[in-house]
Amino acid sequence: MSEKRKITVAYGDGIGPEIMQATLDILIAAGAQVETEVIEIGEKVFRKGISTGIEPGSWESLKKNKVFLKAPITTPQGGGFKSLNVATRTTLGLFANVRPCRSFFPYVPTNHPLTDMVIIRENEEDLYAGIEHQQTNEVVQSLKLISRPGSEKIIRYAFEYARVYGRRKVTCMTKDNIMKQTDGLFHKIFDEVAREYPEIENHHMIIDIGSAIIADRPHSLDVVVTENLYGDIISDIAAQVTGSVGLGGSANIGEEVAMFEAIHGSAPDISGLDIANPSGLINAACMMLVHINQQKVAEKIKNAWLKTIEDGIHTTDIYNKDSLRKVWTQEFAKEVILRLGQEPVRLRPVHYNEGDTMSKIKITKHPKAKKELVGVDVFLDWDEDGRDPNKLGEVLEKIKRHGLNFTMITNRGVKVYPDGHPETFCSDHWRCRFVTEKNNKSISHDQILSLLHEIKEAGYDFIKTENLYTFDGEKGYSLAQGE
Amino acid sequence: MSEKRKITVAYGDGIGPEIMQATLDILIAAGAQVETEVIEIGEKVFRKGISTGIEPGSWESLKKNKVFLKAPITTPQGGGFKSLNVATRTTLGLFANVRPCRSFFPYVPTNHPLTDMVIIRENEEDLYAGIEHQQTNEVVQSLKLISRPGSEKIIRYAFEYARVYGRRKVTCMTKDNIMKQTDGLFHKIFDEVAREYPEIENHHMIIDIGSAIIADRPHSLDVVVTENLYGDIISDIAAQVTGSVGLGGSANIGEEVAMFEAIHGSAPDISGLDIANPSGLINAACMMLVHINQQKVAEKIKNAWLKTIEDGIHTTDIYNKDSLRKVWTQEFAKEVILRLGQEPVRLRPVHYNEGDTMSKIKITKHPKAKKELVGVDVFLDWDEDGRDPNKLGEVLEKIKRHGLNFTMITNRGVKVYPDGHPETFCSDHWRCRFVTEKNNKSISHDQILSLLHEIKEAGYDFIKTENLYTFDGEKGYSLAQGE
Repeated sequence: MSEKRKITVAYGDGIGPEIMQATLDILIAAGAQVETEVIEIGEKVFRKGISTGIEPGSWESLKKNKVFLKAPITTPQGGGFKSLNVATRTTLGLFANVRPCRSFFPYVPTNHPLTDMVIIRENEEDLYAGIEHQQTNEVVQSLKLISRPGSEKIIRYAFEYARVYGRRKVTCMTKDNIMKQTDGLFHKIFDEVAREYPEIENHHMIIDIGSAIIADRPHSLDVVVTENLYGDIISDIAAQVTGSVGLGGSANIGEEVAMFEAIHGSAPDISGLDIANPSGLINAACMMLVHINQQKVAEKIKNAWLKTIEDGIHTTDIYNKDSLRKVWTQEFAKEVILRLGQEPVRLRPVHYNEGDTMSKIKITKHPKAKKELVGVDVFLDWDEDGRDPNKLGEVLEKIKRHGLNFTMITNRGVKVYPDGHPETFCSDHWRCRFVTEKNNKSISHDQILSLLHEIKEAGYDFIKTENLYTFDGEKGYSLAQGE
Repeated sequence: MSEKRKITVAYGDGIGPEIMQATLDILIAAGAQVETEVIEIGEKVFRKGISTGIEPGSWESLKKNKVFLKAPITTPQGGGFKSLNVATRTTLGLFANVRPCRSFFPYVPTNHPLTDMVIIRENEEDLYAGIEHQQTNEVVQSLKLISRPGSEKIIRYAFEYARVYGRRKVTCMTKDNIMKQTDGLFHKIFDEVAREYPEIENHHMIIDIGSAIIADRPHSLDVVVTENLYGDIISDIAAQVTGSVGLGGSANIGEEVAMFEAIHGSAPDISGLDIANPSGLINAACMMLVHINQQKVAEKIKNAWLKTIEDGIHTTDIYNKDSLRKVWTQEFAKEVILRLGQEPVRLRPVHYNEGDTMSKIKITKHPKAKKELVGVDVFLDWDEDGRDPNKLGEVLEKIKRHGLNFTMITNRGVKVYPDGHPETFCSDHWRCRFVTEKNNKSISHDQILSLLHEIKEAGYDFIKTENLYTFDGEKGYSLAQGE
C-alpha cells in the first residue's frame, strides 16, 4: 500500500484531544497509510450557534474522505442543541451501528470473562423513525417501519463483518412470534442472506430470550444482528456485563461514509490531566483500519494494545493491585508502540482476514410482487353510547359501502364486533375493517374515498386509514386477535 | 374470615396434577378460606377440537369466581392450536402481568444473591396489539398503541401492589427520549400517579439502561412497571439472572378476573414420577391469596416455604451437596405444612400489609381536550423517477390542495423534501405532510377527501393516511427528523 488514504479527524472536547493524539501517534508508528484532515466539532461550534455542532463546510470533508475518526464531544446544557450523532447518521445514511463487546478479564473485572461478541444494530428504521400521532383523547401511536432494503443492508453487513473479522456465527434477534410481518420480514431476509454464507453458522433467537442470554452467558454469542430498538437495549446490556464501556470503540457505517469513535464520553472533569485511557479510540481506529482495508496494520495495533493491557501497563481507570505500572495517556500510547509486532499471551490475539466489508453491501433487486388493493382499515375516534361496539357496528352495517364488506371492529387489536366479549375494555380508538365484496377482486381508491365520505356523513371522525393490499395474492395485513 | 371464597382451579397437563395437589394440600392446611371449582383445560380439550384449550362453559366459572389458579398445560404440536393464555388475556382483559424475581441464594445458584424485584408489565397494548400492514413492495409497518387508561391502570396497579406488598420503590422504564409521544404519555402518567403515593419512592429509567441494570445489578431495583414489549424483555432477563424460573409464580390481573400460575411448563417428561418441584405454583397461590385479601395465610405459607428451602429439604431439581434431604413432590408439601407458623432465618421472611390491591384500580375521568383537525400525513407507494424526492415534491406543489399547505416529504422518518440530503437512502414508502393554510385554523374531513382525490387523480397510490390534530392547541404529532 503506497498511497495514503485521507481520513477526516476531529479532536472533540474534554479528553478528546489527548486521546486523539495518543491514537494518531500509534497509527503513524504502526505504518497506517492515512493522512488526516482535521475538522472542528463540538462545543466551539455549538457556541457559534450551529445547533448540530458541526460546521456546514465540514460535511464536504466527510463526504469526500468517507471516513471519520471522531473524538468525544460535549453537548452544552440547555435547549436548542441537537445530537451530532443523529445529524451525522440521518444526513449520511449511516445504517449500521457496530458495537464490539469483549471482556478483558482479569485486567477488567467481569462476571463473564470469556465474552467476545459484536452487536450489529440497524440504525435508521424501526420505531426510531419517530413517526408518532395522537388522534383521540386517549390513544397515542408510534409507527414501526421495517424495510426490505434496510434489513438486507444490515444483515449483509453483519455477514461480511463476520467474514472479514474471522467470526464463526451470526445470530439474528427479533420478536417475530408476535410481529409476524415486520420482524417476520427481518427474519426471512436473514435466512435468505445466511444461505449465501454456508461457512458461517447462523441462528435466530426471540429477542426476550436473546437479551437474557446476553445478560447471563454472553460468551455463547458471536456476531448478533438486530433491529434498532432491540439493538439499543442489548448493546447496553452487553457493555454493562462485560464492563468494557471505558475501553470499547464503535462504528457507524454508511454505504458511502463511516464514522469511528470511542463509546465513552468527553469526561470534561479529567480533561487536560493526561490521565484518560485512550483505549476506546484506539479500538475504534482499529475498526477504521479494517474498514479501509488495512487489516494488517489494524491487527498489529490491536495485538500490541492487548499485550500492553496484559503486561499490566494501565492508565489510572483500570490500574489495580495486580497492575505492573500506572501510566499517563501519552505514555500508554508509547508503551503500545513499543509492543508493535508482539502478540498477547493470556488474552486471545486477533487475526483479521483480507477483504472489504463493504464491497458486497448491495441490495438485491427484488422482483416486484403483483399488488392489489382489497380493502381498508378505517380508524375512528368514537366515545358515545357507552362505547358499545355493537352500537357502532349496527350503524356501520347500515351505511352505503360502495362495494365493500364491513367485516369487523377491533379495539387495541382485539376483535370487539361482531361477537366480542363484553369484558373487553374499549378505548376511544376503533379500527373498522372493510374488504372487497368479491373474493380476490380488487377495489379502487375511489371506492375508499366514497366509503370515507359516507362514514363522515354518518357523523364519525375518521382519524386514519390503512389500505389493505395483497402481494402476489398473499395478504399484506394481519388478522385481528379473535378474527 | 368465615366465608369461603370460591376459586376456579385447573389441574392441567404433565406435572400439573401433582403440583396442584401439593399446592392445594398446603392451602387447606394453612387455613386458606377457599373452595375449589375444577375446570378442564389443556390437552384433553385441545383433542376435542377446541382450539383455545378451554371449554366454552368454563368461561362462566372464571367470570363467576373471578380467580383462577392454573397448572401448566401442554399445547399439542401441529397447527390450529391457540395460546390459552392469549385467549384468557384478551377475553377477560387481563391487563397486568406480574412477575416476581427473587434470588434464593445459596439454595439456588446465582450471581445476584440479593435480588428481590417484581416486574409489572402492561399486557394488552403496545406493538403486541398485532396491527401490521404491508402497503409497498419494500416496507412493512407495525402499530404501537399506548393509551391513557391502559397506562393509568397498570401504573396504579404497580403502586397498589407496592403498598400491599410493603415495597419501597417503583421504577418506570420507557424510551421516551426517542418516542416522546407514546412512551412520553406512559412516563407522564407515571409521574401523575406517583404523586398520589408520597410514601413510595418513584424513579424513571430509559429502558436500555434499565435492562442493563437488571442484567448487572438487579438487587438495586424493587418494583418495575413498564410497557408490554419492554416488560417481555426484562422479565426474561430478570428470571435468567436470578435463576428462579423453576421456583417462580406469576399472575395476570384483570379488573374483574385474575389468573395465577407457575412460570415453568408442564414438563411431560417427568410427569407422574412425583419428583416435580411444586414451588412455582405454591408461590403463585400465595399471590392469589394476597389478591383475595387473605394476606395472613399467604404470609404463613410463604414463610413456611422459605423455611423448607432454607432447611435443605429439596426436590431433585435443586438438590445439591449442601441439601439436607431429597424429597418427593407430595413429601415436599408435607414438609412445608410441618413448618406453617415458622419463619426463615437466613432468607428474608415476607410480611404483607392489609389492603386490597384492586380497590383503587379506577381510571381517572380525564377532561377532554379541545381537538382540532389541522392537517394530514398522506403516505404514498412511489417508485419512479429514480425515487428523487424533488420530483415528487414538484408534482405535489402543483396539485390543487383545497386549503392545505404542502410542507414536507419524509422517507423512513427523515425529511427528504424540501432541502433533503442526496445521500439519504429512499425506500418506496413516502410520507407527505399537508397542514392547514392558516395557522390554528382547523380544516374539515372533506378537505382531506378532496386532497386525496387530487393525489389519486395525479396518478399516485395513497396507501395510508394519518390525520394531524391539535389537543388544546398542542400538536398531537411529531416533527420529522430534520424538520
